[in-house]
Amino acid sequence: MAVQTVESTTDTDDATPTASPASPVDLGPATALSCRECGHRVPLGPVFACEECFGPLEIAYDFSAYDTEELRQRIEAGPANIWRYAPLLPVPADVADKPNINPGWTKLVKADNLARELGVTGGLYVKDDSGNPTHSFKDRVVAQAIEAARAFGFTTLSCSSTGNLAGAVGAAAARAGFRSCVFIPHDLEQGKVVMAAVYGGELVGIEGNYDDVNRFCSELIGDPAGEGWGFVNVNLRPYYAEGSKTLAYEICEQLGWRLPDQIVVPIASGSQLTKIDKGLQELIGLGLVEDKPYKIFGAQAEGCSPVSTAYKAGHDVVRPQKPNTIAKSLAIGNPADGPYVLDIARRTGGAVEDVTDEQVVDAIKLLARTEGIFAETAGGVTVGVTRKLIENGVLDPSLTTVVLNTGDGLKTLDAVAGTGLTATIRPNLDSFREAGLA
Amino acid sequence: MAVQTVESTTDTDDATPTASPASPVDLGPATALSCRECGHRVPLGPVFACEECFGPLEIAYDFSAYDTEELRQRIEAGPANIWRYAPLLPVPADVADKPNINPGWTKLVKADNLARELGVTGGLYVKDDSGNPTHSFKDRVVAQAIEAARAFGFTTLSCSSTGNLAGAVGAAAARAGFRSCVFIPHDLEQGKVVMAAVYGGELVGIEGNYDDVNRFCSELIGDPAGEGWGFVNVNLRPYYAEGSKTLAYEICEQLGWRLPDQIVVPIASGSQLTKIDKGLQELIGLGLVEDKPYKIFGAQAEGCSPVSTAYKAGHDVVRPQKPNTIAKSLAIGNPADGPYVLDIARRTGGAVEDVTDEQVVDAIKLLARTEGIFAETAGGVTVGVTRKLIENGVLDPSLTTVVLNTGDGLKTLDAVAGTGLTATIRPNLDSFREAGLA
Repeated sequence: MAVQTVESTTDTDDATPTASPASPVDLGPATALSCRECGHRVPLGPVFACEECFGPLEIAYDFSAYDTEELRQRIEAGPANIWRYAPLLPVPADVADKPNINPGWTKLVKADNLARELGVTGGLYVKDDSGNPTHSFKDRVVAQAIEAARAFGFTTLSCSSTGNLAGAVGAAAARAGFRSCVFIPHDLEQGKVVMAAVYGGELVGIEGNYDDVNRFCSELIGDPAGEGWGFVNVNLRPYYAEGSKTLAYEICEQLGWRLPDQIVVPIASGSQLTKIDKGLQELIGLGLVEDKPYKIFGAQAEGCSPVSTAYKAGHDVVRPQKPNTIAKSLAIGNPADGPYVLDIARRTGGAVEDVTDEQVVDAIKLLARTEGIFAETAGGVTVGVTRKLIENGVLDPSLTTVVLNTGDGLKTLDAVAGTGLTATIRPNLDSFREAGLA
Repeated sequence: MAVQTVESTTDTDDATPTASPASPVDLGPATALSCRECGHRVPLGPVFACEECFGPLEIAYDFSAYDTEELRQRIEAGPANIWRYAPLLPVPADVADKPNINPGWTKLVKADNLARELGVTGGLYVKDDSGNPTHSFKDRVVAQAIEAARAFGFTTLSCSSTGNLAGAVGAAAARAGFRSCVFIPHDLEQGKVVMAAVYGGELVGIEGNYDDVNRFCSELIGDPAGEGWGFVNVNLRPYYAEGSKTLAYEICEQLGWRLPDQIVVPIASGSQLTKIDKGLQELIGLGLVEDKPYKIFGAQAEGCSPVSTAYKAGHDVVRPQKPNTIAKSLAIGNPADGPYVLDIARRTGGAVEDVTDEQVVDAIKLLARTEGIFAETAGGVTVGVTRKLIENGVLDPSLTTVVLNTGDGLKTLDAVAGTGLTATIRPNLDSFREAGLA
């Protein structure tokens, strides 16, 4: 992947890279980009890799002016979407007034029926992100990328995708008034193509696989043809990724400003899990929740389990795998944030586990049958891993536990295609009785 | 359809039908069932047709104890779902604590891009009910039926359905702890069967068409085999239908406790439109909004336009049609509330209009392209009718207008199956440039 160094988006002197520069753009409390590896700081800009060590850049904030109770009241008085947390995100203070897809504030469902089935006594919750505008958690991260793109003067939004992200980018770009140009493998299933195409942006099929699509996007970023283009998951990635913090914020606020004891999070690139940890740490640091131990558990499908494999082997690095699982939204064989996930799981006393595709399907049905929530395969992975971790004595059923469902079953209908009619009868009572339904 | 007279669900004397009886069940402010035609009152119970004149029964309320500002504050402090309006619905005061699917408080999207395309200058909003738990407005009505079923001691929830309702009943029954048994035509598309079956209830295919399914359900209600069964859209219909009032409540509250000038509502049975009018009238009566004129417009697909046809012909009665349209969720050829819809459209100065299937598809794409909202065909009908009414000078573009989207495009993908890739290229910049994308 091409590494970009900082380029100013304005002509002011402020944009010259320094250790802790004044920002040339208004992204609220965000003050700089900071390397996760070496701590090197650069001004806010459309860059994602450290010029010193090639480490990933993250947003650095200045939260020092906040009074805890004032901040809490400001959040609680905010809109019923992620912008209630604008003071903690790289967005301008008036973000809620700008055209955006406004995701978030999805339901935290108290899953008492599922808790009974799994033997959880400490309170079990499902954070159900299928309630987002395009029905996946990707709306959260894309909404952030939109505001960064606006700040940097980009006019086209782009990404490489095999599904959820394409729809999220298409929808958000349409609402926010950006041109969009999304790249996908040319031979995707027709349903996924329709879902991505309906928003009217450019949808370009690449003759090749997902790796070819990604390689092409990296090439395009470095070319004049890609000028003015914001790739949400490449050159806007530091901003984009921060959207996942809102999952942590919402869970804690919906629990009554309380940390859960245990959270089960799906792992694709691993970014979501690391940002949930970052969000929890911020809430503790700001005094919005009482500090206490929490455990973060990572969930993978066996057919794409590089992080789980490394965790079980006691490794610090993640060996890439070739994905082969029905949980396609998690099928990243070489997860960029894998090492950070390992670190967080071990530091918090959590774990990383995986389940088979059969267990994924069983878990989708279990969640639907008990709570009326129809999850994407990724939700089957987290529920399935939760069940496995309880059975193995790793997850403590007496503690408050939150399980993430990050997507919608309507997008992965094939996974449960075997589900069908329980009976077929003629339209009369005799036939009804014969079928044993009375 | 079989007409049932009142049967007490308890052994108390209170349940004897009288003009204005004390209710044997706690359904909050609901005091009785009242005939829409003759005003005859019976106690709250699982009945739907007047024993005197066979007219439809509606819920009668006692709102007399409410102080306007106290009520407003109570609503605003309530949960982010329909139960914030519990004081105005046939549900117990503690409804939010009971297991239910908790729909509602969906987004009212300020559709500035769509407004520009349509020339609306007075403010255009889309009430986007695809944000409900199973992604259609049916969650609102089923959530009400659940509470009525609980109050009447039913243990099985049932319905006849060809799609959205089956999923809504399956999901809500699972969450709320009811057995469910849903009847559908045996030859529905596999995708719809999967969506309805995944929640694990009984899903029974009936050898016959939708009319056969309905007839069978009416037979079952009158038979001992159907004892203890709540059919959400038959014997629980008066309660179920009230769920649509919450659309009116939410629209007004989200507009800042203000009536819109114009609302465009889809017509299937017509129940939703009549209940939206009822909800608006209640808000006016309670002083929660300032009284002023509003116009309600009904929207149908040309291939199933019995109400629109009657409206244009100046008739008071609706002649049944055999439906033939892609807008299947609106394809009721003999709409029970058709005459009431005609009355409301005329009384408020609105209209009823219809659009072709081609216009429906165009409107789905228009809404997706401008606002990033992927609507079901029913949403294509309302947006398409809005456009047509503006073009014909019937809908005033200088007034505040709300258009309903009652479902999700993911459930009617076939309607836009022609949408696809804008280009296919090889994974290199030359190919990108050749395609004219740079």
